[in-house]
Order: sequence, then C-alpha cells, then structure tokens
Amino acid sequence: MPNMALMVYPSAKAFSLPPPVESRFRELVIRNAASNMAENVPIRPGSSSKLKEFPHLSASHRALMTDLVGATESRLEDRLLPCTLPPDVEYFQNQNGTSQGALLIRSGSPDSSINFILGSWLHSQLPTGASLNIASLSAYLRPSTDAPNFLIEFIQSSPTSLILILDLPPRKDLVLNPDYLQLFYEDTGLDKYRKAIEELPEVRPYAMSSLFFRSLVSPTSIIVRVDTESGGPERMEEIIANHVGPVARDVIRVWLDECACKERGVGEMERGNIEKRDELVKKKTIDIDLGSSLPRLFGQEIADRVVAAIQQIFEA
Amino acid sequence: MPNMALMVYPSAKAFSLPPPVESRFRELVIRNAASNMAENVPIRPGSSSKLKEFPHLSASHRALMTDLVGATESRLEDRLLPCTLPPDVEYFQNQNGTSQGALLIRSGSPDSSINFILGSWLHSQLPTGASLNIASLSAYLRPSTDAPNFLIEFIQSSPTSLILILDLPPRKDLVLNPDYLQLFYEDTGLDKYRKAIEELPEVRPYAMSSLFFRSLVSPTSIIVRVDTESGGPERMEEIIANHVGPVARDVIRVWLDECACKERGVGEMERGNIEKRDELVKKKTIDIDLGSSLPRLFGQEIADRVVAAIQQIFEA
Repeated sequence: MPNMALMVYPSAKAFSLPPPVESRFRELVIRNAASNMAENVPIRPGSSSKLKEFPHLSASHRALMTDLVGATESRLEDRLLPCTLPPDVEYFQNQNGTSQGALLIRSGSPDSSINFILGSWLHSQLPTGASLNIASLSAYLRPSTDAPNFLIEFIQSSPTSLILILDLPPRKDLVLNPDYLQLFYEDTGLDKYRKAIEELPEVRPYAMSSLFFRSLVSPTSIIVRVDTESGGPERMEEIIANHVGPVARDVIRVWLDECACKERGVGEMERGNIEKRDELVKKKTIDIDLGSSLPRLFGQEIADRVVAAIQQIFEA
Repeated sequence: MPNMALMVYPSAKAFSLPPPVESRFRELVIRNAASNMAENVPIRPGSSSKLKEFPHLSASHRALMTDLVGATESRLEDRLLPCTLPPDVEYFQNQNGTSQGALLIRSGSPDSSINFILGSWLHSQLPTGASLNIASLSAYLRPSTDAPNFLIEFIQSSPTSLILILDLPPRKDLVLNPDYLQLFYEDTGLDKYRKAIEELPEVRPYAMSSLFFRSLVSPTSIIVRVDTESGGPERMEEIIANHVGPVARDVIRVWLDECACKERGVGEMERGNIEKRDELVKKKTIDIDLGSSLPRLFGQEIADRVVAAIQQIFEA
C-alpha cells in the first residue's frame, strides 16, 4: 500500500504559471499564524461541505465540480470511508485571508480497489485584483488492480484564462503493454474527447513544465489552455457548461465503469511493480507540487500541517 | 537481439494525413509489376548514393538531411557495417514512376551498442499536382545499453506544409525511472529545443493518430505542424534553414554524445526487459506503419520486397 501522500497534483509550480503570477504568489506568502476560520466547526465525517461549496468558482464551473464529486461519491459510496481530515485541513487560509483552501479525502475501504478520492480547491487573491482558483478531483486505485487513475484539474488565473487537465493516468508502461493501451485508451474512445476540446478555437495544447508529469499522463490526456479574451467571461462559462462539462462527465463515467468498478487479475510480481510505480508517483507529486506551491500560498506552517494530515491518512 | 524490421516510423498512416490526401494515396496504388529503374545499378555497399541525394527536397531541407546522415555516419563510422540492401530496395518506384523511395540501412558491428541506422525518403506525386515527401533518419541502439534512440522525420504534403517529428524516444518507462528522465531529458536541456520550435508563429503541436506512437515519444519530443501559407515556400525554407536545422543538429549531437557514444551498465534482468520493449516497438512500427503505407504507395509486391529485405538484415 502506498505510504506517501498526494495532493493537488500538477498545480501552480508544476504548470509554471507565467512569471508575473508566480512572483505575485511570493508577495502573498504570509508569516503564518494559523488564523483558522474552520477551527470552531465540528467534525462532520464525510460531509466536507466546505470543499463541495466551491465558493469562488463561476456558476457553471461550480455546478460541474459539484457534479463530478457527487457522481464519484454516489457511485463508489459503499466502498468509501468517511472523510476524517481535521477541520483545519478540511478548510484552511492564510493570516489575512487572501489565500484559502479546502480538501476532501475519502479512503477506500480496505477490501476495495479504491485507494482514495481527493477533491480540493485553492483560492488566492492576486495584487492585480484578479484571483487564482485551482479546483481538482483525483481518484487513485490500489495495486490490487492495474487500471488507470482519474484526474481533473482546473487552474484559472482570470475569468477568461483557464488551464484544464483531464486524464486517466496509466499505471503501467504503455509501450510494454499494448493490450492495456488498447483496452483503456483505444476501446474506450477517449481520444474523441481530446479532439472535441482541442477543436475549440479558444483552445491550444499546453505543455506542463514538469517533464515527470508530462511522462505520467496518457496519450489521450486533455492538457490545454483556454483563452476567451475576446469572448469574455461569458464565453468561458459557455465553454465550461457546453464543452468541458459534457466531456468531463463522460470521461469520469468511463473511469467509473471501466477502471474503478471492474475486477482486474493482477499477478504477484506485477502487483509489486504497480505498487512501486504508484509510490513513486505520489512521492514525486509531493516533491514537485506540495513542496513548493502550498508554502508559497499559505506559508510553511499551514503547508506542513496540511501535508502531515494527508500523509497520516494515506500511510494508515 | 530484435528480430523484427523497422522502417519509416510514424509516416502517412500513423500520422493520419487529411482524408483527401489519404484517399488520393489509394487512387495512386498501382497493380504493380516491378518496373524497377534500379535493377541495373550495381551493388555498392555503403554508398547508397540514391538515399543521400534526397532529390525531391528543397535546397535547405536536402542540405539538412544530408548533414544529419553525414554527421551520424562519420561519428559512428568505425562501428557501422556497410549497407548491404539489394539495389531494388535501396531504390524503388511504382510502375508509372509516380511513387519513388530510397533506403539506407547500416547495421552496427556486433560488438557495438549500435543496432542500426536507417535513412529513408519517399516521394509521391499527388493528382493535385502537389507532391508528398517523407524523409527520415532514425538510429536504434542494442539492449547492451538502455540509452534512448534517435528519430527525425519530415512529412511534407505541399511546399508550405510540414509535419516534423524530432525525438530521442526513451527505452524505459520514465515514470518508474526518474533518474533516467533526469539524465537524458532534464540534464541535456532538450526541452529548450521544443520550446524554440513551438514558439514560431507558424508552428502548432501535432497529435499523431496512433496512440502507440504517442506513448512511445519522450516528454521533450518535437511533434509539430508547420504551416507557411501566408509566407509561402520561402518562409518554409527559412524555417528549415534557420530554426529546424540548428535544433536538429543540436539534438543529434546530444544523441551522439550522450546516448550512442557513452557506455551504460545494464544488468541481465534489465537487459531482458529492454530487449522485450525494443522488439515490441519494432513489431508495432511494422504493423502500424509498413503494413499499410508502403502497399498504398507502391503496391503489395514492392512493399513485400522492401519489408522482406529489411527483416532479413535485422534478423541476421
């Protein structure tokens, strides 16, 4: 079982936001005393309402994220344990409230193939007046199956600019395993969703700065930048509601049907390889991602608390 | 040692040329009697002058391909055997001469880490009056090293439209081998070449139709479409001479210095894995590529002859 924690996967650092945005992040870093709005809220295992509020997203974006989290929880409900994060990790903010974040993590029951599902949002006011919003949902399976994981992440630095990552990251070398490529990526028709998104005039492919994350994604991954400068925020809403939304709902349905809810025979030796690979992915994700973006947004103390809580759950 | 042949790697079929071009290919398929201009030419092992002429390429394109083949041969000369292809495989054409092709294959000496280098060009007149030109150089290493291979391929369907593939395809799963990723792709600074090409206004990323080939390439691969409709063929010449050329020469130098000419300790078990992976890559390349594009351009008989000759050499 993996013993490393994992979080907002390829976010700010991994995706190399433009230098002006990155330097503004640094200005925002506060010597953090834990000003913690959530501390008085009683623990409500499994509710994690703060996560599901997605309070800083636009209407269509919020509706989509709520749908995706809801669909995943309801389909996997009998195999998910309640969220047991402490309240100051379920919701956290920096001292002056310019950066806020919320997490929902639900481990799979020990006999299930679900390792955990993880939802998150981060919000940060930029000195420009604009806001950075990152929202993600990921789902990781256990080494008892070799089926792909699930990931969707939105990184929005203005109402007209969005980076979207949507993928079923493979858990095996696709070159050495063409049958696996055929089963999960060809036969599922995933590439048509990539094409549908990339055909939109406001969309262009986006290169993640981390070569490791580029290596991690599948050949049908959707990794794009959407710019609706000329169409304004209304066009972004329309793209999320009418294009990204239907695609994301279809892709998560493929993941639920073909990956999360189907038994896969995995031999002992293969299981060891998958376990090793899964652990590497989680370790790298923490090193590359959590190690830099959380401290920059929230300060070291809050970042350490959040990371420690996650690690504690996943190492259990 | 690999026992399957390999050729013009991700060409027409793998790259899914636009449907009108693909259907025009089919019109061109001739019931082939081997009208074979090259049959009277004596065998000149290692000369393969026809390949090196690149007679259908533009001046800057021809200069670049000649340079790349020359640089590779001269650097690896003491480890390469002469080309022993029969003359009707070194050069071949269909009955009415509308499709022509040339090959150069030089195996590495048995004690070297070089498996083979392979240069090719294909030329086909389209009913529109335009020509399709494919030119490639690839180099494959033996399982005595795990270092990446080399590949450059140009697919040009008009003087203002080019698909370029330039990569050092990895020979291991990069997720399971982050040190390998670091050594060959981070430390070599390869990503700056990708950025330099993708920053050109006429360039946009290109998605290969084959998911297998997409899985095969590295995270620093250059896989782009260049369109110079507005700047005309002159701008294409300029891009090849001043941008693609310098990048390609640098990348092949990286491959020669860091991959082809450095010893790598590879353990017995690892060697078996690499051998298995290399064989799969070659088998898939033939299935996806040779199996369809050569018969379409030259008819089944010539295609069979070319494939058989290649297989014979590589299985030796």
